[in-house]
Amino acid sequence: MKNIKMVVAYDGSRFHGFEKQPNVEMTIQGKLESVLSIMTGTTVEVIGAGRTDAGVHARGMICNAFVESDLSENEIRDYMNKYLPDDICICDVKEAADRFHARYKATGKTYMYTCYIGDIKPVFNRKYVYVLNRKPDVEKMREGAKFLMGSHDFKSFCGNPKMKKSTVRCVDKIDIVCKGSYLTISVHGDGFLQNMVRIIVGTLLEVGWGKKKPEDIPDIIDAQDRNAAGFTAPALGLCLMKVDYN
Amino acid sequence: MKNIKMVVAYDGSRFHGFEKQPNVEMTIQGKLESVLSIMTGTTVEVIGAGRTDAGVHARGMICNAFVESDLSENEIRDYMNKYLPDDICICDVKEAADRFHARYKATGKTYMYTCYIGDIKPVFNRKYVYVLNRKPDVEKMREGAKFLMGSHDFKSFCGNPKMKKSTVRCVDKIDIVCKGSYLTISVHGDGFLQNMVRIIVGTLLEVGWGKKKPEDIPDIIDAQDRNAAGFTAPALGLCLMKVDYN
Repeated sequence: MKNIKMVVAYDGSRFHGFEKQPNVEMTIQGKLESVLSIMTGTTVEVIGAGRTDAGVHARGMICNAFVESDLSENEIRDYMNKYLPDDICICDVKEAADRFHARYKATGKTYMYTCYIGDIKPVFNRKYVYVLNRKPDVEKMREGAKFLMGSHDFKSFCGNPKMKKSTVRCVDKIDIVCKGSYLTISVHGDGFLQNMVRIIVGTLLEVGWGKKKPEDIPDIIDAQDRNAAGFTAPALGLCLMKVDYN
Repeated sequence: MKNIKMVVAYDGSRFHGFEKQPNVEMTIQGKLESVLSIMTGTTVEVIGAGRTDAGVHARGMICNAFVESDLSENEIRDYMNKYLPDDICICDVKEAADRFHARYKATGKTYMYTCYIGDIKPVFNRKYVYVLNRKPDVEKMREGAKFLMGSHDFKSFCGNPKMKKSTVRCVDKIDIVCKGSYLTISVHGDGFLQNMVRIIVGTLLEVGWGKKKPEDIPDIIDAQDRNAAGFTAPALGLCLMKVDYN
């Protein structure tokens, strides 16, 4: 039995999120488990670093699974890629220590959200960008983002109203970059609540559109009320880029 | 009545090619004509610079159409983009002289074919690249390409066995570029036969894989027989980039 660590990329468009659900065939976890179970001839459980929502993409999702197999790391990678659908790719497989756990051992994550601000429709990128009808004021967004940095109770930015565990998280980087027709918002933190990045993006866009002021952000945080923050930006613009481990 | 010249980009994946066909709903020409007919309230015919095959993409297809409309150029563009599906975009609309004809006045075209030679599956580009299982010898491909340059009877490179008109064409540029995980083949000529670029690419790939020699190309041309050339590279890697007019 060995513990394998996988780097997984996927186009989330067709999937109902990462996490396996009863009677839902199209989940990333479900597809990975099914291929590994066929490969090993036994039931395999796959642990992901996080649960991406339906329609959210990943370039650097990390997963682990205990498998009984004589195949080498690259042979496992190639086997999985052969039998997984075109929109899921195993970028890398490495044997890890038994104590490695993709979720519990994760110390940070980087997400990137991509908005499209060009004049003409993004035909070839249309499934990976959120098309904005109005260009936001990027400087105002950056001012607003500063107030989100650090450790806060992000309850106002949590999409799950029934969340019972701590909603305190630390966000230590929000980079907003405008390049050609694209506006990207990269967020790094020690962990994220459900929909948290998408609500941060929606709130910063409302700041950029003048619907909210940058200096409203501290009040939004203090409210601890989802209704105080902005809208939830659509899933298709979001991509999990990287997961950190010590 | 004005003659409008349109620059059109499309993801060809879902379409049965550019050209309208009886009882086939999903064609680029059909979609363009239907939107312009609704806009003007009369039947509009759209003329394209060329007929791309099913699955072939375009970034710079040129079309023209005579329309009766008070809308400005940009208003026509925006109207069309609003009602066209996500995978067709009107990049530009300009009024042209009455004598402008997108097909008859075209003096040259540039196509780009993209192959993927990376180790891991191209999740986000999978509909726009042809994944090669074996990396070809690019120098050999370039040697082979030299023999294709100039005016030739390209009958061996024509996918239509019933072609009755001249099969003489002039190819004046074939650029083969290897960059990261991508191998692109750009071809410029005064015009192209059905499947011609895809057969050129298939033949050059066979040269790159050692299945054919660069110096076999003159014999392949001389044979004037489709069976002498290589395979037809799949449609999804091909994109019409630019159409020239004097």
